[in-house]
Order: sequence, then C-alpha cells, then structure tokens
Amino acid sequence: MATEVTGGIRKRVLIVGGGFAGLRAAETLKDAEVNVTLVDRRNHHTFQPLLYQVALAVLPENEIAQPLRAIVKYANTQVLMDEVTGFDTEKCRATLKGGAELEYDYLILATGSTHSYFGHDEWASLAPGLKTIEDAVEIRRRVLLAFELAEREMQETGKHPALNFVIIGGGATGVELAGAISDIAKLYIRHDFRHIDPAKAQVLILEGGPTLLGAYPPDLQKSAIKQLEKLGVHIRVNTRVTDVQPGYVMVGDERVDSVVTLWGAGVQASPLGKLLGVEVDKKGSVIVDEHLHPKGHPEIFICGDLAAAKMADGKPVPGVAQPAMQMGVYAGKSIAAEVLGKRVSKPFEYFDKGDMAVIGRSAGIANVKWPFKGHLSGFPAWVTWLVVHIFFLIGFRNRFAVIRNWAYTYAFFKEGSRLITGDQSLPGWEHSTDSGPLRTQPIAGLAEPH
Amino acid sequence: MATEVTGGIRKRVLIVGGGFAGLRAAETLKDAEVNVTLVDRRNHHTFQPLLYQVALAVLPENEIAQPLRAIVKYANTQVLMDEVTGFDTEKCRATLKGGAELEYDYLILATGSTHSYFGHDEWASLAPGLKTIEDAVEIRRRVLLAFELAEREMQETGKHPALNFVIIGGGATGVELAGAISDIAKLYIRHDFRHIDPAKAQVLILEGGPTLLGAYPPDLQKSAIKQLEKLGVHIRVNTRVTDVQPGYVMVGDERVDSVVTLWGAGVQASPLGKLLGVEVDKKGSVIVDEHLHPKGHPEIFICGDLAAAKMADGKPVPGVAQPAMQMGVYAGKSIAAEVLGKRVSKPFEYFDKGDMAVIGRSAGIANVKWPFKGHLSGFPAWVTWLVVHIFFLIGFRNRFAVIRNWAYTYAFFKEGSRLITGDQSLPGWEHSTDSGPLRTQPIAGLAEPH
Repeated sequence: MATEVTGGIRKRVLIVGGGFAGLRAAETLKDAEVNVTLVDRRNHHTFQPLLYQVALAVLPENEIAQPLRAIVKYANTQVLMDEVTGFDTEKCRATLKGGAELEYDYLILATGSTHSYFGHDEWASLAPGLKTIEDAVEIRRRVLLAFELAEREMQETGKHPALNFVIIGGGATGVELAGAISDIAKLYIRHDFRHIDPAKAQVLILEGGPTLLGAYPPDLQKSAIKQLEKLGVHIRVNTRVTDVQPGYVMVGDERVDSVVTLWGAGVQASPLGKLLGVEVDKKGSVIVDEHLHPKGHPEIFICGDLAAAKMADGKPVPGVAQPAMQMGVYAGKSIAAEVLGKRVSKPFEYFDKGDMAVIGRSAGIANVKWPFKGHLSGFPAWVTWLVVHIFFLIGFRNRFAVIRNWAYTYAFFKEGSRLITGDQSLPGWEHSTDSGPLRTQPIAGLAEPH
Repeated sequence: MATEVTGGIRKRVLIVGGGFAGLRAAETLKDAEVNVTLVDRRNHHTFQPLLYQVALAVLPENEIAQPLRAIVKYANTQVLMDEVTGFDTEKCRATLKGGAELEYDYLILATGSTHSYFGHDEWASLAPGLKTIEDAVEIRRRVLLAFELAEREMQETGKHPALNFVIIGGGATGVELAGAISDIAKLYIRHDFRHIDPAKAQVLILEGGPTLLGAYPPDLQKSAIKQLEKLGVHIRVNTRVTDVQPGYVMVGDERVDSVVTLWGAGVQASPLGKLLGVEVDKKGSVIVDEHLHPKGHPEIFICGDLAAAKMADGKPVPGVAQPAMQMGVYAGKSIAAEVLGKRVSKPFEYFDKGDMAVIGRSAGIANVKWPFKGHLSGFPAWVTWLVVHIFFLIGFRNRFAVIRNWAYTYAFFKEGSRLITGDQSLPGWEHSTDSGPLRTQPIAGLAEPH
C-alpha cells in the first residue's frame, strides 16, 4: 500500500456515508495527497443528537441538517449523491444504484445504523423511530396532530380518546422523546387549546429490560427515572410489547391504548456491512480488528455505528457520535500516513469523555469521564449537555441559530416550529362521525383552558 | 339581524379559512360581543407572498407559516382544525368532514383559490404550482435535486441532460420563480459542484397571453422582461402548452425538454364557493354585491380570492393579500356594527396601494398607487417590496427571523434551507445505467467549477 508516494497517480479514497465518521474522515484527509469521493444517498448531514428536538417542534429541520456540499469544500474531495448497492472487494470496486462502479484504493465504510423492529417490519409505519429528518418531521406531525384531533373531537362530540403517548424502548432516544413530549404538553402548547387540557396527556415508556438507560451506572438510572416521574412520565420495565396496532399496543394479553406510538427499542447496522462479504455480528455490524479493518482487508476501514469495535476492557464501543468521529479521524490519519509510506501501528482506542441523556427542558443525566470524572443529574447535567451540543454542532451559522431558538423557546415557553404538513390523519384515529350540531357553541367564558 | 344586543345569547360567527381575510376578520371581531369559530383544515396560516422563497430554499418553511392557534388568541374565538364539506344556508349550518354540523348566525367564507390545470389534472404531479407549504417544499426538492442528479450523471456517465427549468405562466408567481431559480443557479449553489456548471441552467417562461404580468402597466411589463432577460431568463409569449409529460412539455408539435416544470398559469376558486348554492363566475368565485354578500344572503360575507368583487372602475378586485385583508376587516366591522344594532351602509371599496413583483435578488417592478403614485423598476422596486413584506409579516418573531435570513442570504450569497427530503427521484429522469467504472476519477485539479 506504500507505492506511488510522489509524482504518480493519487490514491483514491472512497468514503461511504456522510455522518459523523465520514465527515471527520474527509476533514482529516483534506490536505493529504489523495482523491476523496464522499458518497451519500442524501444531500445532507444530519446532526442526529438533536433530531428529537425537531421531532418535538423546538428546532426547525434546517437548523440541524446541512447540505454535504456546504460542509465538504476541500480541494481533493468530491461529493456524489448516490446509493451504494454492493462491493467487489477483490477488484476494489463499489457498485452504485444505476450500475456504475466506483474504484477505490481505500474504502471507509460509515453508513451507520437504522431501526430494528425485531422482524416486525409492519410496525414501522405505526411506531416511527428517529434516525432521519423525515422521521423527525413525521413524529412531529403525529404528536401535534394528536392534540389537534383531540380538540376537534371535543368540539364536535364532547369527548376524545385519552392522549396516551406510548414510547417503546427506554434508551436515550426513548427518554429524550418522553421528556420532550411532556414539555410540549405541559408547557408549550398548554394555552393553545380551549376544549382539551394538553397537560393531561400521559407519556408511557415501555422497556423490555429490567431498567431504563441500561448503559448508565445504576445511580444515574435511578436519577433519570426520578426526573422522568417528576415530569409525569410513566415507566414500565420488563415489559415486552408483543404487537403494535393502529391506536394501541399489546403487552401479552393487555391492550395499552396509544394515540401516538414511537419506537426507540432497537437498532440494526446498515445493510452495507453484510454486502462486504466479511464477518458481521447479529446486529449486522462488521467485526473489525484493532485498526478498524475487517479481517483480510487492510484497505478497508469500518467506522461509526457500523463497526463492532471493542474498548480496552472488552466492552463494545457505543454507537454514538463521539466514537464515530474518532474512528473517522483514525481512518483518515491511517490513510494519510500510508500514502506517505508510513504506517500507523497504534490501534484505535476510544477516548470516552462520557455519555449524556437530556430529560425535558432543564434536566438530564451525565456520566462524565473527561475532563473530570463524575455523575451529574438534573440541571447541571442539562447545562453540560447544552454546552457540549452547541460546541459540536457543525457549522457556525447553525450553532448560532440553534442557540437563538433555544433561548427563545426556554425564555418564552414557545416552540420554534409547529407546523403540521402532509397527511392530516393518524393511524387508528377515525374522524368523528357524530352528526348533530356542535355542542361546544357558544364558548363564552372559555378563555382560560381548563 | 339586530336582535339580542344585550344580555341574550351571543351571535355565532363562523369564519372558514385562516388566510389573510379570515385572520383579519377574526382580529376585527376580537372585542365584539360575538362567539367566533375559525375553521381551517390546516393548523397554520401561510404567508403566501413569500412562499416562492421557501420553494427556492432561501427561507425555511417555519418562518413563513405559523400555527393559527398561536396567532388567534382572542377570548371570543376558538380555532377548529377541520374541513368544511357543505352548507345548509337555509338552516345556517356548515357541515364538517365527519358529519358534524356547525351553526352560525354570520358566515365569513374565505377559503381562497387553488391551481387550475384547465381540465388537465394529470399535469398537477408533473408541474406543481405554489399555494401551500407542501407545494413550496416539493418545488424546492425538485429544483435542488435536478442539480444533484446532473452532477451525479456527469460523475457516472460524463454527460447530463440540459438543465432546463420550464415555468408555465408568466404572472407574478411565474416571474418570481424564474428570478429565484436563476439566482440559485448563478449565485448560491454555483460553487457547490465540481462536474456541472449550475450557471448554465436555463430558465424558460412559457406564457399563453401576449405579455408577461398582464395586470401591470406596459412600461413595467417591458421593464420586467428586460430585468428577467438580464438574469438570463428566456421568455416566450403567445405560447400555449398543449401537454405536460415527465421530462418535457409540448407546445403544439414542438417538444421542449424540461428537468423541472412548474405551474404558474391558472387559478380557480376554492370549491366551497359552489357548495353555497349561489351564483359563481367561471373560475368558481362567488359573485358578491357591494357589501360582499352573495345574492339573498346578508348573513354571509365572501372575502379574499373567493370573492368576485368589483372595483369602482368595474375591474375585478385582484386576488392578492391586500384586498383579502381589507375584505376581512370590512366583514368583521359590518358584523360588529350589526350586533350593536347599527348598520354599515358604506359599500366595500378596495383601497389599492399598488402591486409589486420581485425579480431575483435585487430587482423587481412596483406599480405604486399610495402613498405616492409612480412606477418603480429594478433596485428601488425591490427595496419597496422588501419593506412592505417585512411590515406585513404576521408576528414579530417571524419578521425578525426572516430579516436575519435575508441579510445572511444576500450578504453571503448563501441559501438558508437547502435540504432535499422525501423521494430522491424526478419524474422523467431515469437513473444512469452506465455500468463501466466511473470516468471522473481522479479529480485532481477540479477544485474550481468549470
């Protein structure tokens, strides 16, 4: 791999995936004597840690997503918006959707993960998860629409179904969605309605395992549960959902009514890992060595959620933004060194600064490992979360806009982006068919919500 | 109509439509002794004059649309998100989609207009028009995707179809879309691509009548044409489109290739006018008397685009925001007076301050009638347009955000909101099926766009 260092043809680096890992790899390679092609089937990078704020109408989608072309402006890098559908690792080629092939000398595969419905793909449309901008906009649509439809039912029939929001899965996504829905109902839209009291909405987390936030230390788990309960969120652990239907979910024989069901229960690796023809684990993540190579392929690096990498203590590297970025940098540095005839012998090591989950408007938990060690809960955890996320938002303009939106939201209890677009119905919610004249007129004296 | 002024049951005012007319009517009635119900099938008001800026990625959609509940916070007014599907004007009732009925003492019908494809509804998906937030996001998706797909074709096959953007109809919408596409191509995204030159995109307006902007005086029409031609926009008048197909339109026997076709040619009134069972004109607008009543219904007011109202000189009142607002105020004042036992005898008169159309980033035309009379062209027209639109943007926060976005866009030549979401294909554009290795590698030396 150490040929043609000077003068000759530049090595071709193919990066598949414009997430945290792919972008950091491209950035690391920007001054290297290589030609980089970054392929993504979307035109934008999504800042996934803030997706839930788009889903809950605090931030508009354009503030946490940016066109890849606007980010990757390096002289040696081109962006190709297309879908990779296969690999010929013998010939070092990737196949694109239309049949064209893309040759590479180095491949950085960083296509992340997607939802896993544990074999029940029919649940996907009934319980959307949160991975893309489209997911977030769809969740926003459903949550806001539930309140609108309840108000309408009250106006037209004098009653409405209970506003139960059921979140399947008690990991970080589930906890963040639960806190945010609770905020919306109790703070932001509370005074918008005349006939329903949004604050009476119930948020329920159904977790299959014995505890929420399994990846955190027990004291922080307990703190998170306490903070959620303070927000009025109901939590049921050791509760396995056996069916998802329009308007309800089943837990064994028990029916749990749900106007909006959301999915935070499982992820699986992007299917591209399997297409490499190398060893993958049961989630479809690629087994890699300490240099992030799949077995027998020193020219391939697997980065981010798609890599089944191990930490020094043998535990898996978590599928979050920090290790993805570090892997991208590692792959980039390794390639930059190799084309100069050097060799990176130091294995990849995840420098773990800690984990955080935010719970509603001003609470959260943080398991801080750097620059100090400590467990934070409540407001201090939330402030830490805020500072870290502002710091890592890619692109100054977005960062500024996000801060402005947050300040506005938190100061005035108002939401930033509350549009319902697209379909105006919810699965399982029939339009009222009451045919009498409206009961709710006149409304004199209804100025205050009840 | 002058009964129960004091003490008794309040009169019920039903406003259908949360556009400019409906909102102004509700605002005018906010202190009147009436109970107002504002019904709209959407949860938001759309600031239509700026829709084209969403369509062309300058503004994000949440900045020109606001939830009706956030705007209409009057003690005597409730918002109902539902669809009116019919009327019983004898019994003074409106029927809602689910069958419920809404009684009224006064009805203000202000449901506006929609696209007319002149009997060719099959053209709608091939040539979207610009009336709703969804329309704007769809146009944005298509325009941005055209450039992405062209870049991809160049990378994969070394050629791409000509980037022709065809706009059918040369009214204000068509002219604004044409100027904005030209700006995008030549200014904002020009430096984002390596293999195509976006500035080579062609924008073509096909107008069926003898001139663009038929409603304007001839000197301003000429000026607009000159300004558009300066931006490189091609204009063909007296050109009737006879068919719209994926990838092209037909003008008689002539095929005009088009990667994105947009519709600005015709509007028709909302179908609710016809459902009243009163006289309508050929566009479906309701014929009203000088008090905005349809014949025989002094309890009904028709406002905005849905009203076929006449000016003092016998010309029709134009279907734009200003007269809609004035009609809403007129209807509101009339009802407020009547419930006090008074009577508004003064007929509705449109106070015409003039019309404006913007052409690209810093040009336009303005036919100013108040506070002075004059024809403006180019930069002065654009500044006038800017000031007027900032002034009329509903809600201070949006106004601030829009100004900030404009300043940013105009200062840095950057667009505010350039996401491609949803479907990643265009009608008539097949994915390249070239199967050789990519021709475009390596790309050394391609740092500058050609």
